[in-house]
Amino acid sequence: MQEPLVFYTNPLSRSSIVHWMLEEVGAPYSMEIIEFGDAMKSPEYLAINPMGKVPALRHGDVVVTEAAAICAYLADAFPEAGLAPPPAERGDYYRWLFFSAGPVEMAASLKSTGFQPSPEQQVALGYGCYEHVIEALVSAVKGKRYIAGDNFSAADVYVGSHLRWGMNFGSLERRPEFETYCEGLAQRPAQQKVMAFIQQAMAEKEGAAN
Amino acid sequence: MQEPLVFYTNPLSRSSIVHWMLEEVGAPYSMEIIEFGDAMKSPEYLAINPMGKVPALRHGDVVVTEAAAICAYLADAFPEAGLAPPPAERGDYYRWLFFSAGPVEMAASLKSTGFQPSPEQQVALGYGCYEHVIEALVSAVKGKRYIAGDNFSAADVYVGSHLRWGMNFGSLERRPEFETYCEGLAQRPAQQKVMAFIQQAMAEKEGAAN
Ligand SMILES: N[C@@H](CCC(=O)N[C@@H](CS)C(=O)NCC(=O)O)C(=O)O
Ligand SMILES: N[C@@H](CCC(=O)N[C@@H](CS)C(=O)NCC(=O)O)C(=O)O
Repeated sequence: MQEPLVFYTNPLSRSSIVHWMLEEVGAPYSMEIIEFGDAMKSPEYLAINPMGKVPALRHGDVVVTEAAAICAYLADAFPEAGLAPPPAERGDYYRWLFFSAGPVEMAASLKSTGFQPSPEQQVALGYGCYEHVIEALVSAVKGKRYIAGDNFSAADVYVGSHLRWGMNFGSLERRPEFETYCEGLAQRPAQQKVMAFIQQAMAEKEGAAN
Repeated sequence: MQEPLVFYTNPLSRSSIVHWMLEEVGAPYSMEIIEFGDAMKSPEYLAINPMGKVPALRHGDVVVTEAAAICAYLADAFPEAGLAPPPAERGDYYRWLFFSAGPVEMAASLKSTGFQPSPEQQVALGYGCYEHVIEALVSAVKGKRYIAGDNFSAADVYVGSHLRWGMNFGSLERRPEFETYCEGLAQRPAQQKVMAFIQQAMAEKEGAAN
């Protein structure tokens, strides 16, 4: 029997990365919407994620947090979905997953805070600086339909989500290489389904506010 | 035939994470020492890592950068070393690898810059704040010899390196749970070999400076 999959989420958050991944996997799952604020910091939810953040995933007894970890976990737990390269061929796969979870995440989120590392700090900081991260990411997606090998993978879900989100909110600049790569991914039915879900959640939120 | 493994490194850097991992894998590898400064920003080296940083790894035609990615890659490329759980059981493995590559890295490196996120920023920033990262990491290693299941894995190399390094340099605070976990890992011959190598490199550097 298939262990139940529970997805802890808020529609307007990084959870959309995992939502897209779950739709690519195609296994049944249930969704628990956690509101920002008190609910996310309740003892019940902190037992799932001590960071008090979404997304999180429960699969039977296994709890996974961190959007990138959840993507990598699901790809391996549901091999029939074909969302990870074979274990011996995961160079690019891990490289760009971790590059996005580390340097890209740091560059994009610090941009909005106005923090600017000095040249000495850039040597020690794992992301160096915003400009170097952008150039490295351009080189990673340039001319490629998929970021890790010939097939779509969990790395495309994660990197593609960062790029789309970052370009929409101005935390990552628009580059033709990014846009071409994202346009390719936007054709996937699983992504379209999640985009429609988010749009509806936003419309409902606006409706409630009026 | 085994493809050659080339390890681009500088002894006094995050490269020691990968060095330890390579010693755990046990396959032969060659070491290319890249000096900080011009050599690390040369066109030859930027072709390996566009970030101009160490560590990096070449395995035949495959290039991998990002210390965590290299650890995960090696564990899968050399399954006989037994350094990753089976694919279906990687919840904790990916969870704490990505938590360390993202939130821990960000919390530890921003601490030294004096950056302090406001409560509003903490909601949006993936690491929340330094204090929450420390508590989540305590809960991850508390009472555990290994961080992902019953066996030593690449996640211990990566998380354990962050903890040892962070506690030594003051970017992560000393907690009894961290020290107990690190003491267990310090018994591994592969880690001891790398520590001796680093100590010698430091002594040579000091000798050259005098
Ligand atoms: N490193 C985490 C970041 C998760 C995160 O920061 N989530 C935000 C929403 S996008 C959140 O839950 N914020 C609520 C809070 O911190 O109270 C990941 O990649 O999953
Ligand atoms: N995110 C990278 C960080 C690598 C990194 O920042 N390396 C430093 C040494 S610890 C470096 O090479 N700095 C030289 C420079 O930036 O010029 C990783 O985890 O491997």
